[in-house]
Amino acid sequence: MPVVTITLIKGYADEVKTGLAERLTDAVRASIAAPLDGITVQINEVAPSGYMRGRTARKPGAPVPDAAAVVRDFLAAMEARDLNKAKNMLADDFTMIFPGTAPMRELDELIAWAKDRYAHVAKSYERFDVAPGADGVAVYCFGTLHGEWLDGRAFEGIRFIDRFTVADGKIHDQRVWNDIGETMLSEARGST
Amino acid sequence: MPVVTITLIKGYADEVKTGLAERLTDAVRASIAAPLDGITVQINEVAPSGYMRGRTARKPGAPVPDAAAVVRDFLAAMEARDLNKAKNMLADDFTMIFPGTAPMRELDELIAWAKDRYAHVAKSYERFDVAPGADGVAVYCFGTLHGEWLDGRAFEGIRFIDRFTVADGKIHDQRVWNDIGETMLSEARGST
Amino acid sequence: MPVVTITLIKGYADEVKTGLAERLTDAVRASIAAPLDGITVQINEVAPSGYMRGRTARKPGAPVPDAAAVVRDFLAAMEARDLNKAKNMLADDFTMIFPGTAPMRELDELIAWAKDRYAHVAKSYERFDVAPGADGVAVYCFGTLHGEWLDGRAFEGIRFIDRFTVADGKIHDQRVWNDIGETMLSEARGST
Amino acid sequence: MPVVTITLIKGYADEVKTGLAERLTDAVRASIAAPLDGITVQINEVAPSGYMRGRTARKPGAPVPDAAAVVRDFLAAMEARDLNKAKNMLADDFTMIFPGTAPMRELDELIAWAKDRYAHVAKSYERFDVAPGADGVAVYCFGTLHGEWLDGRAFEGIRFIDRFTVADGKIHDQRVWNDIGETMLSEARGST
Amino acid sequence: MPVVTITLIKGYADEVKTGLAERLTDAVRASIAAPLDGITVQINEVAPSGYMRGRTARKPGAPVPDAAAVVRDFLAAMEARDLNKAKNMLADDFTMIFPGTAPMRELDELIAWAKDRYAHVAKSYERFDVAPGADGVAVYCFGTLHGEWLDGRAFEGIRFIDRFTVADGKIHDQRVWNDIGETMLSEARGST
Amino acid sequence: MPVVTITLIKGYADEVKTGLAERLTDAVRASIAAPLDGITVQINEVAPSGYMRGRTARKPGAPVPDAAAVVRDFLAAMEARDLNKAKNMLADDFTMIFPGTAPMRELDELIAWAKDRYAHVAKSYERFDVAPGADGVAVYCFGTLHGEWLDGRAFEGIRFIDRFTVADGKIHDQRVWNDIGETMLSEARGST
Repeated sequence: MPVVTITLIKGYADEVKTGLAERLTDAVRASIAAPLDGITVQINEVAPSGYMRGRTARKPGAPVPDAAAVVRDFLAAMEARDLNKAKNMLADDFTMIFPGTAPMRELDELIAWAKDRYAHVAKSYERFDVAPGADGVAVYCFGTLHGEWLDGRAFEGIRFIDRFTVADGKIHDQRVWNDIGETMLSEARGST
Repeated sequence: MPVVTITLIKGYADEVKTGLAERLTDAVRASIAAPLDGITVQINEVAPSGYMRGRTARKPGAPVPDAAAVVRDFLAAMEARDLNKAKNMLADDFTMIFPGTAPMRELDELIAWAKDRYAHVAKSYERFDVAPGADGVAVYCFGTLHGEWLDGRAFEGIRFIDRFTVADGKIHDQRVWNDIGETMLSEARGST
Repeated sequence: MPVVTITLIKGYADEVKTGLAERLTDAVRASIAAPLDGITVQINEVAPSGYMRGRTARKPGAPVPDAAAVVRDFLAAMEARDLNKAKNMLADDFTMIFPGTAPMRELDELIAWAKDRYAHVAKSYERFDVAPGADGVAVYCFGTLHGEWLDGRAFEGIRFIDRFTVADGKIHDQRVWNDIGETMLSEARGST
Repeated sequence: MPVVTITLIKGYADEVKTGLAERLTDAVRASIAAPLDGITVQINEVAPSGYMRGRTARKPGAPVPDAAAVVRDFLAAMEARDLNKAKNMLADDFTMIFPGTAPMRELDELIAWAKDRYAHVAKSYERFDVAPGADGVAVYCFGTLHGEWLDGRAFEGIRFIDRFTVADGKIHDQRVWNDIGETMLSEARGST
Repeated sequence: MPVVTITLIKGYADEVKTGLAERLTDAVRASIAAPLDGITVQINEVAPSGYMRGRTARKPGAPVPDAAAVVRDFLAAMEARDLNKAKNMLADDFTMIFPGTAPMRELDELIAWAKDRYAHVAKSYERFDVAPGADGVAVYCFGTLHGEWLDGRAFEGIRFIDRFTVADGKIHDQRVWNDIGETMLSEARGST
Repeated sequence: MPVVTITLIKGYADEVKTGLAERLTDAVRASIAAPLDGITVQINEVAPSGYMRGRTARKPGAPVPDAAAVVRDFLAAMEARDLNKAKNMLADDFTMIFPGTAPMRELDELIAWAKDRYAHVAKSYERFDVAPGADGVAVYCFGTLHGEWLDGRAFEGIRFIDRFTVADGKIHDQRVWNDIGETMLSEARGST
């Protein structure tokens, strides 16, 4: 049922407007059980000279980089071991926590720590979720890990989930949970 | 900079309107780097006789129960072992996956499975995140577990994360990841 | 697709607003092949102190009596031979033309003329159409006549159409066409 | 007094917008006795990327061919006996009823029937009225017939009225009433 | 031609809304040569829960005391020599300049200075003008002075003009010009 | 807090829109004590075919020449003694009143009158104020005069104020007050 109208200064790319309209639709649906077909979003675009706040002309805010896309790029760079690219995507206050680790600040620490865990690993993604928040956007992704243990055996289907905080196009925080410990424990018990 | 105007049929409670306005604000912020103070949301309320779609008067959609509140209630009922209350909050197609388990459909299965894991457990929450989506709302919460192992030793500070799908006020899906396996493994190794 | 928003001064009855919203919907449909469910009408109501035109507060225009209802009332009064009521519904410049008559200004002329046509007559309505125009509203109704000829024979199923001009709740003009002449002619020929 | 604002996706021709604005004005005037100069219509045009309903971008509905123009074209084609053109303007379910005829589906039937009525006939139009409706637009036109009887005598000034149903630019229905029977009857009587 | 719509949080008194609508009308007229009757102002009022800026509910700004009324009250208090009332209307940084005086800060200074000018004086107002500005509102009034000179002769018709700066309901500045000097000079010359 | 939206027919220059937005902001601030940063003005621009009032397309009103700029041009022309230019800026009903003069209608009268007052004079402006009104715009300017008396002595710092009425880009009225009389009187007394 509801009609949402938003006024922007002209000049945003179509995909920015589409993303905005989708997010506004989702925001309505998270609040009111309206039939999807009854939710209309209209974007009015005014000339720069047609907008004033506080008796002052304003510049349109820059489009926010799509947080999920930022995370996908980072994950791809990490998987390709393109550490320079990955480091450039991190905010200065970046921290990460993996299962059983203390908070780490450098990707190199992570690489070093992982060397004792597996020969190599890659992720299959089931889904990305994006949770807007007052202090940035939380991006979640989950799915399964596959790769090779240190002893050369292959593994696959191990569940994982990552949570990232993205603000201003940079990654501030990564937290990882997975079933590797559970799997190893189960193997350890099985092999007893 | 942007001004968002939404038209609703009169009659929503203040907290529904406040939640809606916050979600619309967040939707804008996830799209455009506008200064927070420049994002205005206005809710126009029209009489039921002042709204028509498809040449037909419409009833306002019911407020969507706050998905995070639904999840909090469910987690509290589970912690209090109020299984009747918890079951009432589940959709018919409910499934849950815990570390190392196959998908389960009944809370009793979960209780039975947990009996072999620990004597009791409780959660300390660091944060709830809400990700609106086209097919329902994903609610994430994470923090640490504390409780008692089967051998009577206490534990605490074990990281966990839960993901719920909520639609129409019901929980359709719960997925859990945590560091219990990692912790046990580490203990097992330490005790070797 | 289109969203129509109209601002009125508060105080119109629900049926006035409903009628207005239906007419606005029809106006859109007569212009653009939008799916019916995509046409939304919203009526914003402002306080009398919230409306000013030409630096002057305005009184809301009176609701226009539904033109089709005015015509129905007139036709019912005529059928019941309640001539006083019917006369009160006519504008000062009222004229009417029936098949084969010159323009008449008085209902009594009509009654006198009809006496030579049939003993009595009544209308069965198939449909009323309303055509808004710059100088008033044209109301059309059509269907069939039934009644009794002067010689006592019954008739039925004779097609008719009436056209009325309604402005300010008064009827200014009635024009009538029907197949009575055709029927009589056919009977005359048949009886030859 | 009222201000009507309608939001369209950009790209309609000026005459479509003008027709829409006139129809919206008429819809208001048929509802509220506002002074004509107090009725304002504003058409907001948004980019295709600035409109979303049901979380889906939409294509603007095609302009509806002006129903009165469709009817005028059809009448002109019939008068010029351009039957191919006229037939192309008819919907598959087209029917027509003339005074004293059963419903006909083919223009050829009409031509055949008319041959016994007059040598030729043409229409002088006094007015076209357009009545938007939920299931199409009714177009009325009325005026007088002139032409030549089968015996070579000229006639003129015989009242007629036509009613057409137009939907999706096609004519679905034509109904005709006129005073030809009345006129013949009157002549027959006069000649007695 | 233009339509101005302003959205306010509900609760302003009618005269505040009327004053606002008049000022908005004047602002348009000072910018565009639209016919007065074509300028419409609409005030949408939303519930307090229907307004949010910067993700925060807001309180409606207090009505600004009408600056011309503030000045009229001050002038009436001065004319009635109700100095307490008049002093309460002054801002802390108040200054005033009269013909031939240095800036004064205290009303008592003014009274003392005037004693040497005339026995008493009063103002007849021709007009008040209000000039909104970025740093407060300038109120002008002009007309003529009448009263009695120190020697007991009456005077009248001496032109004056006052300019006040009003902000937050307080008077910050008064500047006075008049023809008293001119008049005296003329008398002095005439009496030569 | 308030959001002002104004709809204009497309085509105004940026500076017209900026001036309009500033005046609308000032109109709000003169009415409601909203924080400046909370006042937003949005100018919707519709195509000429997207605006209709009274069922008639309208031409956009011409931009109103900035009244303060008109007055500044006039004052500059007068100071440069470009009387032709200055006369062209006057409305037919122009009148002016200077200290001690009767109303004058011709600039030549003024020049003649001034000849007996000073050899030459020029103005230093402290401020221009603009007061929109129902019957035109009042422009005020004040500051100090400097120049040379008839006897060759220089003068400066003599306070003045001018009030102009501007409508349709023409000056209808000038009223002048200043301290010249006061100054002369003071000199006359001092020289006694």
